[in-house]
Order: sequence, then structure tokens, then C-alpha cells
Amino acid sequence: MAHREIGVAVLGLGNVGSEVVRILRSASADFEARVGAPLVLRGVAVRSLGPDRGVPEDLLTTDAQGLVERDDVDIVVEVIGGIEPVRTLILTALQSGKSVVTANKALLADYTGELASAAKNADVDLYFEAAVAGAIPVVRPLMQSLAGDRVDRVVGIVNGTTNYILSAMDATGADYADSLADARSLGYAEADPTADVEGYDAAAKAAILASLAFHTRVTAADVYREGISAITAADLASARAVGCTVKLLAMCERVPGRPDVADGEDWVSARVYPALVPLTHPLANVDGAFNAVVVEAEAAGRLMFYGQGAGGGPTASSVLGDLVSAARNKVHGGKGPDESTYAGLRIGPMGDTPTRYHVFMEVTDRVGVLSAVAAEFSKHDVSISVVRQEDTEVGASLVVVTHMALESALRDTVAALENLEYVNAVTSVLRMEGTGE
Amino acid sequence: MAHREIGVAVLGLGNVGSEVVRILRSASADFEARVGAPLVLRGVAVRSLGPDRGVPEDLLTTDAQGLVERDDVDIVVEVIGGIEPVRTLILTALQSGKSVVTANKALLADYTGELASAAKNADVDLYFEAAVAGAIPVVRPLMQSLAGDRVDRVVGIVNGTTNYILSAMDATGADYADSLADARSLGYAEADPTADVEGYDAAAKAAILASLAFHTRVTAADVYREGISAITAADLASARAVGCTVKLLAMCERVPGRPDVADGEDWVSARVYPALVPLTHPLANVDGAFNAVVVEAEAAGRLMFYGQGAGGGPTASSVLGDLVSAARNKVHGGKGPDESTYAGLRIGPMGDTPTRYHVFMEVTDRVGVLSAVAAEFSKHDVSISVVRQEDTEVGASLVVVTHMALESALRDTVAALENLEYVNAVTSVLRMEGTGE
Repeated sequence: MAHREIGVAVLGLGNVGSEVVRILRSASADFEARVGAPLVLRGVAVRSLGPDRGVPEDLLTTDAQGLVERDDVDIVVEVIGGIEPVRTLILTALQSGKSVVTANKALLADYTGELASAAKNADVDLYFEAAVAGAIPVVRPLMQSLAGDRVDRVVGIVNGTTNYILSAMDATGADYADSLADARSLGYAEADPTADVEGYDAAAKAAILASLAFHTRVTAADVYREGISAITAADLASARAVGCTVKLLAMCERVPGRPDVADGEDWVSARVYPALVPLTHPLANVDGAFNAVVVEAEAAGRLMFYGQGAGGGPTASSVLGDLVSAARNKVHGGKGPDESTYAGLRIGPMGDTPTRYHVFMEVTDRVGVLSAVAAEFSKHDVSISVVRQEDTEVGASLVVVTHMALESALRDTVAALENLEYVNAVTSVLRMEGTGE
Repeated sequence: MAHREIGVAVLGLGNVGSEVVRILRSASADFEARVGAPLVLRGVAVRSLGPDRGVPEDLLTTDAQGLVERDDVDIVVEVIGGIEPVRTLILTALQSGKSVVTANKALLADYTGELASAAKNADVDLYFEAAVAGAIPVVRPLMQSLAGDRVDRVVGIVNGTTNYILSAMDATGADYADSLADARSLGYAEADPTADVEGYDAAAKAAILASLAFHTRVTAADVYREGISAITAADLASARAVGCTVKLLAMCERVPGRPDVADGEDWVSARVYPALVPLTHPLANVDGAFNAVVVEAEAAGRLMFYGQGAGGGPTASSVLGDLVSAARNKVHGGKGPDESTYAGLRIGPMGDTPTRYHVFMEVTDRVGVLSAVAAEFSKHDVSISVVRQEDTEVGASLVVVTHMALESALRDTVAALENLEYVNAVTSVLRMEGTGE
């Protein structure tokens, strides 16, 4: 316990920052015992000064750059979010020998390479457990617990806003707009919900998860992305009729190379879209603002991690766990694992990705429709798993669930269906989780 | 990549050892890339030599002590199990500067203090993720991810054999003996199933989990323990009637100190017993040989970790993750977290533990029975939540589910019930998970 103090700077005093500071100050004896040295808060960078921030005023500063550069700061905790000025602040911190703990998924999804290099060059830590799935340990399990295994697949519900909206649509039969309004009024959706509902937030997390899982650098731009704003009450009802619900999934897969294709190597598919999830699947029961991540690895089999994916307390828990790790390394020597990109797998296009489709169409109710539709699937080498036909006021609806096929073949099939004489409209096309085997 | 080789010795070549050796040899390029140096298998200690062990014969040895002492061994992986000679081998390894990775819950539950001291004195690592819940990362999340939080409670299904038996009893209505025989024939139960069905295995894991969660040394002897061999088909049916199933739970709780009691400090309750689990609880759906651990922490809220709790592959996955951590530390410096027992909380007796009871009794079907029974609960300050009365061939059965009360008060109530004139027998007493609020 004779070790010098470890100085901590916190950047940002929003929901997460406030909780980080509160816990750090109220449990200081525990932190000292767990780290082996006292953690001392040197300052908190805020946008504007003011009283009643729950922090002694002499700790507050608007000069984040100055705080980061202080000689008595050993670790910088960044919970501001966004790209600039945060990227510059973190690089400054790393380059001046300070370890960094961040919850910033948008920054990591695009700049992990740059930040990780800076950390490595300075022999300091860059920890970011809180960037994916809030309180749920996912980053550390992928980087450390599964470091001796081969991860094949990571599938997660990693955005609480969209999960709240889809859970509400499923439970109440409400449409998207009403459920979004409801989520907004309860504080689960922001005034501009684009980053959440269009899948950008989930795509950033998918990029981080895929990078860790496959030892390959994957950025947000590599992730195929569709949001939930086009999901209708009819989609949920149709999903329910085939024993499914709809979830926005972040999916990261190692796709086996095909012997008939040029390099034949395994490649990475990273994608975010709303998908039908069978009610028997562990992710189907993850409701509301909760998150869950399923990891499938060769030796471990299927693992699931479940918990609160957002909020001040849960995110602060992850941030503070990382802070303790970084501080222990400052006290006892050593550092956390570096970025691992040695596998350098190719990131493949969505068209080459094997998946399943759930196609909902309105058809004219007459003999021969089903066989014509089935023929189009067959022509494109797409095998059908389930067909469900129902009379409607204006004709009939036809739902086709396929077996696994290439996304490109499924797209071509749908395009062809739209030209069939008795198919009036392909109302919705959703993918479905699971191999169906 | 210019680092010298890291020498690895494996002790034991059963289900787990074979998988560890197979993966280590088949994925050596991945291990080298992830560690920053080649991992080289120096030898495998077995009880008796023989061909067809899946390992080159020149790597096999019956001299475990000699293998552990070799100068070119940096890390020892122990997957033999049991106390001796393993305890001596691990102490020898640690004292001679080798890091140790073990899956040995029985050893750790009793000797963590001795082993952790030896590791600390020699400045080497002692990792044991595989000792609890097989492939599921639980040890690392508790020691690292939640190191900045306050854990209040850990509840887990950590024994696959008993979970298989109880799942089968629930699904088929079969009795305990038949379900045990079935588990044996499928390889889920050993010829002598005592360690599993009487809760000793789960108690060892509860000791490890409680130690990590509460920064307090807890050994197997500190864990209150009941097994499942007295559970009947009638218990499962009765549980179902109140919306529950029965699971063998390992429970570790920080119980808040009472202001009216002498020291008033929080204390630790660690216990293993079969309990009613409401079907709405996330642990209720963990079936068969799967394990799951729920952690409740102040800031993080409720987390759940789910996966395969046993078997060669899943256990090897955890062992190899630890091996990579230990090897990275050998290459890059630093070490994993030491044992943390600074909190030194008192471990309280079962009688002081707050819990809920589900009491099943046979009564004479006449006016006044219910009021007499209710009066006994009231007399002992135990509040009743649900009463269910049913006519049977010989009279009537009465089930009482209580609210939270002290275990000692519940015991006294049951003793008093047995002396009531119209209560013919108290057939079964089970605890119930959840606060009921």
C-alpha cells in the first residue's frame, strides 16, 4: 500500500460521468484496496462551469486539454462521446503516457487502429468495455477469456432504444411511430433517434465486436446496415404467425471459405438489420432496454451474456472495472492486451452472406400462384422451408420462409417475384436468425 | 515476435487435458500471434504411459513432479483434479516461478489462500476461470470487469449433473432415482454421484464465487449445503402449481447488517440447496447440462452469464484463455490480479439468512386447520404469501409459500407445525428464490 497515488481525470459529466465520479468518490477505500494505491480524482472536464454538478467546484474545468496534459494524471476516463475533440484528447493522453478508459463506440469503430497504435507506442492501456453493451462484460471475455478459442459467430442485441421499440410493437401491436413516440417520452429514445433507429449505433458496436472476435480490423463502414424505421405492425404479426419476434441484430460471422472460390479463405461478415428471431432462441426473450450478446466458439460452444446495455450506473460499472485494470497495471506493471489484427481476414459483401429470408407478399387468390412463386425460388436455387397462405379482403397474402441461401440469390428471387403476374406486391422482406436446421 | 518460447506443461490427459493439448497443437500459429511468442508444449503428465493417447509418446511422462520442475517450463496447466498430489505439484510450480492455470474447484475452495500466497510471493499468476461454470467467463468478470462495482449477490446453476436430473424430473414427471439412472446412462452422472447430487461440487464453486464477489476468503466449509437426493416428483408438481420449477442453486449474498445487532456490518451468506425458482426468473429456463450465473451489482444491475458448464471442449476453452493471459504476462510483463480478501466480511450462519419457504403438508380436512396453521406462522413472525389447499385421497394437502423471513424463524415454524393436531405430516420444505416483492 506504499504506492504513490494514481491520478484520474474524467472527461464529461453527463449520466455516465456523474456516476463514475460519484462511485469513485464514495467508494475510495474499496478502490484503494483493489488497486493497491489510492485513486485520486484530479479533475473533471465539463463544457460549462456551474454549481450543483455534484462535484466540488474546484475539480471542474472547461480546459479538457490542460487536464489531460497534467503531470499528476495517470489515467484519463473519457465519457463525452463523439469524434472531436475527443479523438485529439485521447491521442494526447496516450502520447503523454496516460492510460485511457473510454465508452466511445463511435470513435472506436472508426479509429481503433490509430488509438491502439498510440497506446502501444507509449506502452499504456486503452480499455473500452463500456463501448459495447453497457454493463455487460463482452470486450474482456472476447479479448481474454476466449483468447484460446476460435470464435465463429457473435450475435447481439446491442441497442436498447430499438429493442424497446420492437418489444413494445410486439407486445402491444402498436405501429412504429407510436412506439417510437412512447420510447421518446420515457427517455429511451433521443430527440433525433437516427443513430439508434437506423442502426448506426449498433453498426459501430458490430465493428468493435467483429474486430475482437476475428482478430481483424473491422470499421463501421465495413458493416452492412439496415434500421428498423420500415418495420410495421404487420411485420410483427407475420413474425408471430411463424413463431418468431423481430429484433435488431448485430451479427458478426466467420464465413467458411468455399473451395470453389479463388482464395478459399474464411472471411468476415458484419451486419446489422432487423431479423425474425424464433421465440425458442435465447435472444427472443431479451426485452425492453436490455442487451444480450451470444458468442459461438469452437471449443466453448454457445455462450450468452445478458444485462443492462445503457444508462449511467451500468455504463459506469464497466468504465470503473476498466479503470481498476488500468490502475493495477500502473501499480503492478504490465498492461492489458494490445489490439489484435493478425488474422487480417477479408470482409465480404452482403451479397455473399448466407442467410434466410421471410418474404411477405400480396397475391391474387387463384390456382397456380403458389406454384409460380415456388418456381421462382427454385429457379434461383433457394430452397423453401415454410409457406403460409391466408385470405385477405383484397385477395390473399403469401408468406415464404426460406432455408439458408446466398443473400444475392434471395435478392434476385424477390426481384423476380415482383414481376410475377399474380403477385401484387412484395410487402416486406426480412431476414431470419438461425440456420433452420 | 522475437520473444523466446513459452514452455507449457500439462498435468492430466482426461477429457479436458486431451482437448487442451489438441487445440494447443493444432492452433499453434494463432497462439503465437495472440501471445507474442510461441507456446511450446514441453510435456504432458499422465498416470500411466501407453500408445494412442493422441499425443506424441515422447511428450508423455508419469513424472509430474519432474515435469513441473523443468527449467524450460514457464506455465503449468493442471487438469487432474482432486487435492493431492495436485496441491503439492501446484505449490512446487508456483514456488519455482511458474504461472499456474487450473480447473480444480475442490482444491481452490479449500486452498486458495495458500496457493494465492505462493503465487504472490513468486510474482507469478494463478488463473482458474475453468474452476467455475466451465466455458462461461465468470471468474474474470468478477475479478476484473466488476472490480469497480459492489456485488450484492451471485446466484448460479453451476452443476450440470443435478440440473440435468431436475430438468428431466420437471419435464417428464419421473422420480429422482429414475432420472439419476437416466443421467448416468447418458454420461451426465458419475458412477458415484455423491459430489454432484449432494451439492459438494456446487458448494466448492459457491465458495470460489463468494470469495471473488465479496473480497473475503470463503472456503467450502463455510457454505451451507443441501443436495437434491430428497427431491420428489411431488415436489416438482407442487412447484409447478405455484408457477415454479426446482433448481439446485449456489447462492452468495452480501446481507446488510442490522442496526440492532452488535457489529451491524454487512456479512456474507454462501449456500447451496434445491430451491423453487419462478418460471419468469432467467434461471428457470436453464435446462439440462447448461450452467448460468446471475450477478447483481449496485451499479451494473443484474447480469447473466450462460453456457456449457462442463465437458472437455468448453472447459478447455476457459483453460486456454487463462493460458494466453498467463503467457502474455510472461512475454509483456505484469501479472493478473492477486487474491483480494481485504473486505474480510463475517460469514454468517444459515439461521440468520433471510429466505422464503415453500411448505408442503398433509392435513386432516376439517374446519380450523388453516387458521391453526396460519397462527403458527404468525406466532413466529413469518408472513404468508400464498396458501393452496387441495383434497387428496387421505385428507387434504396444504401448501404455504411465505414472504422473506429469517431461516431460523422458518425452521421454528415448521417444527411447530409438525406438532399441530390436524397436521399429519410436513412432507417437504423447500426454499424459494426471489424476494417475492
